[in-house]
Amino acid sequence: MITRMSSLFLRTLREDPADAEVPSHKLLVRAGYVRRVAPGGYSWLPLGMRVLRNIERIVREEMDAIGAQEIQFPALLPREPYEITGRWTEYGQSLFRLKDRKGVDYLLGPTHEELFTLVVKGEYSSYKDYPVTLYQIQTKYRDEARPRAGILRCREFVMKDSYSFDLDDDGQARSYQAHRDAYVRIFDRLGVEYVIVKATSGAMGGSASEEFLAVAPTGEDTFVRSTESGYAANVEAVATPAPAEQPVDGRPEAQVHHTPNTPTIESLVAFLNERAGLGRAFTAADTLKNVLLKIRQPGEDKWELLAIGVPGDREVDQKRLEAALEPAEVAMLDEADFAANPFLVKGYIGPNALLTNGVRYLVDPRVVRGSAWVTGADKADHHVVDLLCGRDFTPDGTIDVAEVRAGDPSPDGRGTLIAARGIEIGHVFQLGRKYSDAFSLDALGPDSKPIRITMGSYGIGVSRLVAVIAEQHHDEHGLVWPRAVAPADVHLVIAGKDDAIRAGGEKLAADLADAGVRILLDDRGVSPGVKFADAELIGVPTIVVVGRGLAGGVVEVKDRLSGDRRDVGVDQAVEHLVTLTKGGNPRGN
Amino acid sequence: MITRMSSLFLRTLREDPADAEVPSHKLLVRAGYVRRVAPGGYSWLPLGMRVLRNIERIVREEMDAIGAQEIQFPALLPREPYEITGRWTEYGQSLFRLKDRKGVDYLLGPTHEELFTLVVKGEYSSYKDYPVTLYQIQTKYRDEARPRAGILRCREFVMKDSYSFDLDDDGQARSYQAHRDAYVRIFDRLGVEYVIVKATSGAMGGSASEEFLAVAPTGEDTFVRSTESGYAANVEAVATPAPAEQPVDGRPEAQVHHTPNTPTIESLVAFLNERAGLGRAFTAADTLKNVLLKIRQPGEDKWELLAIGVPGDREVDQKRLEAALEPAEVAMLDEADFAANPFLVKGYIGPNALLTNGVRYLVDPRVVRGSAWVTGADKADHHVVDLLCGRDFTPDGTIDVAEVRAGDPSPDGRGTLIAARGIEIGHVFQLGRKYSDAFSLDALGPDSKPIRITMGSYGIGVSRLVAVIAEQHHDEHGLVWPRAVAPADVHLVIAGKDDAIRAGGEKLAADLADAGVRILLDDRGVSPGVKFADAELIGVPTIVVVGRGLAGGVVEVKDRLSGDRRDVGVDQAVEHLVTLTKGGNPRGN
Repeated sequence: MITRMSSLFLRTLREDPADAEVPSHKLLVRAGYVRRVAPGGYSWLPLGMRVLRNIERIVREEMDAIGAQEIQFPALLPREPYEITGRWTEYGQSLFRLKDRKGVDYLLGPTHEELFTLVVKGEYSSYKDYPVTLYQIQTKYRDEARPRAGILRCREFVMKDSYSFDLDDDGQARSYQAHRDAYVRIFDRLGVEYVIVKATSGAMGGSASEEFLAVAPTGEDTFVRSTESGYAANVEAVATPAPAEQPVDGRPEAQVHHTPNTPTIESLVAFLNERAGLGRAFTAADTLKNVLLKIRQPGEDKWELLAIGVPGDREVDQKRLEAALEPAEVAMLDEADFAANPFLVKGYIGPNALLTNGVRYLVDPRVVRGSAWVTGADKADHHVVDLLCGRDFTPDGTIDVAEVRAGDPSPDGRGTLIAARGIEIGHVFQLGRKYSDAFSLDALGPDSKPIRITMGSYGIGVSRLVAVIAEQHHDEHGLVWPRAVAPADVHLVIAGKDDAIRAGGEKLAADLADAGVRILLDDRGVSPGVKFADAELIGVPTIVVVGRGLAGGVVEVKDRLSGDRRDVGVDQAVEHLVTLTKGGNPRGN
Repeated sequence: MITRMSSLFLRTLREDPADAEVPSHKLLVRAGYVRRVAPGGYSWLPLGMRVLRNIERIVREEMDAIGAQEIQFPALLPREPYEITGRWTEYGQSLFRLKDRKGVDYLLGPTHEELFTLVVKGEYSSYKDYPVTLYQIQTKYRDEARPRAGILRCREFVMKDSYSFDLDDDGQARSYQAHRDAYVRIFDRLGVEYVIVKATSGAMGGSASEEFLAVAPTGEDTFVRSTESGYAANVEAVATPAPAEQPVDGRPEAQVHHTPNTPTIESLVAFLNERAGLGRAFTAADTLKNVLLKIRQPGEDKWELLAIGVPGDREVDQKRLEAALEPAEVAMLDEADFAANPFLVKGYIGPNALLTNGVRYLVDPRVVRGSAWVTGADKADHHVVDLLCGRDFTPDGTIDVAEVRAGDPSPDGRGTLIAARGIEIGHVFQLGRKYSDAFSLDALGPDSKPIRITMGSYGIGVSRLVAVIAEQHHDEHGLVWPRAVAPADVHLVIAGKDDAIRAGGEKLAADLADAGVRILLDDRGVSPGVKFADAELIGVPTIVVVGRGLAGGVVEVKDRLSGDRRDVGVDQAVEHLVTLTKGGNPRGN
């Protein structure tokens, strides 16, 4: 196949788009792959379509290979199934909702658990029908608060989502593993550098959950990994190891101290070490900071107070907090809240006023029985020292939302954590029975008793991958596509206007096309310099220059990635290029 | 490729779905191709996906072959471009509108003229860039008042829409012809029986316009064709031939007659012939019926009166009326309207009261200068005879909205019209400059002067074609797919449980798959009778039965369409089936 740049619907840009911050966004726009239509809404131009379709094809092949069956749901969905699972409300502002001409409620599908569950319930009834895995590659919609970075975070995007349906947990574990293995093959074939991290399952519900994160400094997700083991996790999913409990007997009594002007941890620690005369040294980690919040459950009007106790050397991490409390909304207290609860003495809040006044009080996992803390005494300018957890106060439970820091011990006990940034490209998780319970999805067992079906849910951000691959595969001159997803196999530049060069280029292009090589042929009437710059920008992995060398019987073959150039005899060019390009793309399509 | 029915996500149904009226709807549901999710919203199950993808592939191949370039826009679109062209309002209730979290207006794209125009304006500037043709195969949304007939008329559906951009009318004519030819190839390859009819261009604007209608008694569109020429037209597009004008000099004067109790044409004609004593015979075609309506332009609050004069033997055709007045809304008068306009004497309305009172008055093309009519005298129980058009009244213009009937003369002067029903599957039309004017899409000409671009618009209902093909290709046992779109090449039934038969079936399936034949293998543990019935229902064009004959070295090859069966030696079966199936599907995919 020959695509002629003289007629290709493509205009490259010399300047970065004004709204672009990340390299993939700049380059995909400059090289004419995508165009912005609305916030978080992009059009795919011809070269972009090809990369997108190549990714879709690889995803489809690997899904088919594990026996997953492709179906497709509408994107415009009725409210009822999402009402049954509560997600009509839980999704909040992220859901695009609309009414039809009769005033009936609809939504644009952000994810299709409800529909997959219902379609299986509609078709299958016997245990003999199971297991089954279904998938779709479909346009999805989420009303992101901050669409950003071009096609990295859109409001309309293409996802592959699949669901496994099994009779028992063992089957579900096998389905999960099959998907995980398929994802490894997909991302390997796509040339993505990624890590697999433990993850929370968010609004989806469920238990075991891992994310595939493409490593990228521009990524929105922070993840951590161990310096010494294979441990890696999304920050939201890091489980802080609890220290050993300590005895409470024989420990010093709690003492209230006058600590004037110490509303901050910093001022408190300075006071304790410099002016309190306690004869021991304190750090911020010895203090217990009580953070007051209010939360509201979906569909509720009423906010409830929640206090969270964390070691004073750490902040509450907003993402970890939201993940832990999801689907509830969370907000800081305002002045009216403090006025309505006069027992909350700002800067000096302690566990006892909270527990006495019925405020739900959750603590960091480090706050174990027998741990001693300096914390507020519920009285202005006073703190209590040696307040012992399990003796002097008993929290309502734990919540693991303190910030995770480089240098923290790895949860698996081996090494310490280091932080990196990534972009979520895939997610596998064991949904369990959340959706089968919601819709009573049962199989009739061999004993005629119903078996509640166990589900897994698996997603890949297909359109996002175009940007992710661009983010990982570019240099200062432009894009450098991995062969498997490139919009062409060979970018053939006719560098010269004389008839022999033009004819030679056309012949080589025709011969290569006959041999199944996809050619992007630069047959335009512009200067070689413009053509070379565009070839670098567009990023086809192999660039062939038919120019002056043709008189001497050679063409130049340049590797876009390494920049290596070599002259190849024009008679050997087809064979050479077929070998070169088929290696990474056996189908040649 | 082998698809095993033992694990295929498919359950056929013995009963027609309760809401299904047309054969394609019944059969596509019963055979497990689609499932309903919402009014006008369907899911594609695995077999349906395959047929849909086969159609998409053929459409894509033929579009690529005429040099059209594939791109893709979002379905969720901003309001502004549709505001500029007026279609945000004109589309009325058929447009799905919604707001994002910031309250900004969006719509779900029903058709993308605005976006195509804008993308070309964004990339192209010089006359050297043109012509260009772009297309997309995309999910579209229309809030149909009456979604019906399964996937024949959905609110979410897949369309191929393309647009040509030319520098002049000759270029546009060539682009139009290229598309028309491509559509002929597409529908021929798909095995659709269709006619090409002259059409109106509806809310799209524009001039030359033809529809491809699949012939089907269940179709929503009525079209007519000539008994003696190739003339065919959508009823909305039939141009009634005007008779010759007649002299007015020397014709009898108009006479008002007392015609008691003749508010209907029937009663009037009876009175004229039986009791008026005028000495000549009258038919309904000699009377002029004045139909009162009110119309409202998009975005306007105010309704305006409109009177339409048609020969009394014909009704006003609602579809022709709506097409002629589009985008205005049209409604019948209510009692309040008559009360507000006392010059309207129901049953006796004549041209003169209308014209005197400033009511816009349009007449059928048969009402030419010199034609004489019996019509209302604007006074109860009175009619006027020999009222001459051009002497006694002068209408404001003509409107061609009277019903078209079998037996009417063909507009091309050859033969008479006969009526048939069809389903719109494609539409080609010359948009002209409506959208390039709206967005000032100009190319800079060789003389540095701007050239306004001329556009063509071309659509194919891709998902609808699945139903259309089913509608034309079925019998009382089920579907009978044309080979080019069938979900498999061969439906191989293992008819028997003994090991030899099972092994023989598996081996033949494997050998065929190796030879590139797509096999649907019925390896289920159900009776041969159930398998045969499902094979007929599913409609793969070739059914192979591996059963008792295997002991004698033969398998049965059955043609689903003709019902012909023949025994083929098992050793020749692969060669025989490869030859049989590749004929209609050279790619074997």
